[in-house]
Amino acid sequence: MPPEFEQRVRGSFARQGIMAHIGAEMTQVRRGHCEIRMPFRPEVSQQKGLFHGGVIGTISDSAGGYAAFSMMPERSSVLTVEYKINFIKPALGAELIARGDVIRCGRTLAIAKVDAFVVRDDGEHLCATAQQTLMCLPSTSDEVIS
Amino acid sequence: MPPEFEQRVRGSFARQGIMAHIGAEMTQVRRGHCEIRMPFRPEVSQQKGLFHGGVIGTISDSAGGYAAFSMMPERSSVLTVEYKINFIKPALGAELIARGDVIRCGRTLAIAKVDAFVVRDDGEHLCATAQQTLMCLPSTSDEVIS
Amino acid sequence: MPPEFEQRVRGSFARQGIMAHIGAEMTQVRRGHCEIRMPFRPEVSQQKGLFHGGVIGTISDSAGGYAAFSMMPERSSVLTVEYKINFIKPALGAELIARGDVIRCGRTLAIAKVDAFVVRDDGEHLCATAQQTLMCLPSTSDEVIS
Amino acid sequence: MPPEFEQRVRGSFARQGIMAHIGAEMTQVRRGHCEIRMPFRPEVSQQKGLFHGGVIGTISDSAGGYAAFSMMPERSSVLTVEYKINFIKPALGAELIARGDVIRCGRTLAIAKVDAFVVRDDGEHLCATAQQTLMCLPSTSDEVIS
Repeated sequence: MPPEFEQRVRGSFARQGIMAHIGAEMTQVRRGHCEIRMPFRPEVSQQKGLFHGGVIGTISDSAGGYAAFSMMPERSSVLTVEYKINFIKPALGAELIARGDVIRCGRTLAIAKVDAFVVRDDGEHLCATAQQTLMCLPSTSDEVIS
Repeated sequence: MPPEFEQRVRGSFARQGIMAHIGAEMTQVRRGHCEIRMPFRPEVSQQKGLFHGGVIGTISDSAGGYAAFSMMPERSSVLTVEYKINFIKPALGAELIARGDVIRCGRTLAIAKVDAFVVRDDGEHLCATAQQTLMCLPSTSDEVIS
Repeated sequence: MPPEFEQRVRGSFARQGIMAHIGAEMTQVRRGHCEIRMPFRPEVSQQKGLFHGGVIGTISDSAGGYAAFSMMPERSSVLTVEYKINFIKPALGAELIARGDVIRCGRTLAIAKVDAFVVRDDGEHLCATAQQTLMCLPSTSDEVIS
Repeated sequence: MPPEFEQRVRGSFARQGIMAHIGAEMTQVRRGHCEIRMPFRPEVSQQKGLFHGGVIGTISDSAGGYAAFSMMPERSSVLTVEYKINFIKPALGAELIARGDVIRCGRTLAIAKVDAFVVRDDGEHLCATAQQTLMCLPSTSDEVIS
């Protein structure tokens, strides 16, 4: 991925108001892969003090979306068509990590998988796993992820 | 639904830190149905100024979850097993509404459907639709939605 | 839907080898809607004598796919991008019916919902519900559903 | 997995009428993993001569289901709650292989992933990928997969 493109992915992420609002940060991006992390705060919790499932879905959606966007032509945009997420273990931990990887990137559609982990003292624990379909929109001035 | 139970559903919703943080409000709840609304703000946007898909997923998850919780035994808890959401139209509007309805509530599992709408000057527009599986956990002191 | 088009939908269905093999029949098709029925036989069962979940998925996939195909331009093809199906009740009955309806048909993608019912002496029972994404391929000589 | 249990998994598979009907064979089963294969025949095709997507879903459903069943207590049954499948490449080939792996097996629910491949002269090609939720039913006389 040329440096200008990483710039473009990170610039788009920076314009997603929700990411700053929930404290999420893009910690890695390379061709076909993207990692997003966020610390636990009461503002991202459900009623029992775990990360809310929708928040896990939110950063998973962006992680898969930007993993796909990193493989799309320079002047294109990306759009989430749909995603499906399974919650595997209680999302209890100091930090949440979503890692998205592209399974296939065609001309129009891309398929990504995303694993989400909570970080505790004893390491990372898989807490959710998602499968996602994304669409490449050609030649728009900017990208339009979900 | 007895009034104490509505109280319990609303009490649980009030403890979901993310709901207040994104400005979401539970506007309706009755047996098998729940509606959540939130106004648009830059803090819930993606990079083009639309509602972020993950935010749509978040209130859809809670709308379906509380619709199911409203049908579960009094001393039970609810947990999101998984959900799948399709994005149908650009989520551009002043307000977002998620309406969850239970398709079937068994002893252990419940299935809900959720439609999400954006509100514009000319009315409501379906922008996403979701299908969700929930689990009833018996006799916990409190519920643990996703 | 012009009669030539119904012909085209039915012609395509007739070429799906699996449909005849499992005894499935297209019983209704109109713009945005398609119904497929099949009788129970041991050849479509799982190990307990119910309709196999994958068979329910198969006719649901075709019902949603042809519902979408009925709304696509004349010289286009249809392709299943993905589907998600929830099993709601044991699929025990003499007949299985899948009814697909298009939620939205855009230029490139369509979203359909499909409900599957088992027929018993006391009527139809919802046994599964699915959500599906389809793609329209322009100007191919023939359609290529899933 | 003790030999009696492999026997039980294979015995259950043998009672799925649809598997023999579409020519599917269970080629591997071990704790948390199951592989099913089937040759191409016009009887399992869609209208363009590819494997039908619903057929790919059918053997994927059974592959994930038996992978999960292999980890469940001896006197339990397994049931497919839901699955979601993405079609990645045209399923053109002489043989279809579905490989299911359990991501997590809890007391009540299990999550599995399944990859489906078509075999051509130049090897295996990933054509679909699925994510599945299964349920363990305790102490039934026999299992009831989807």
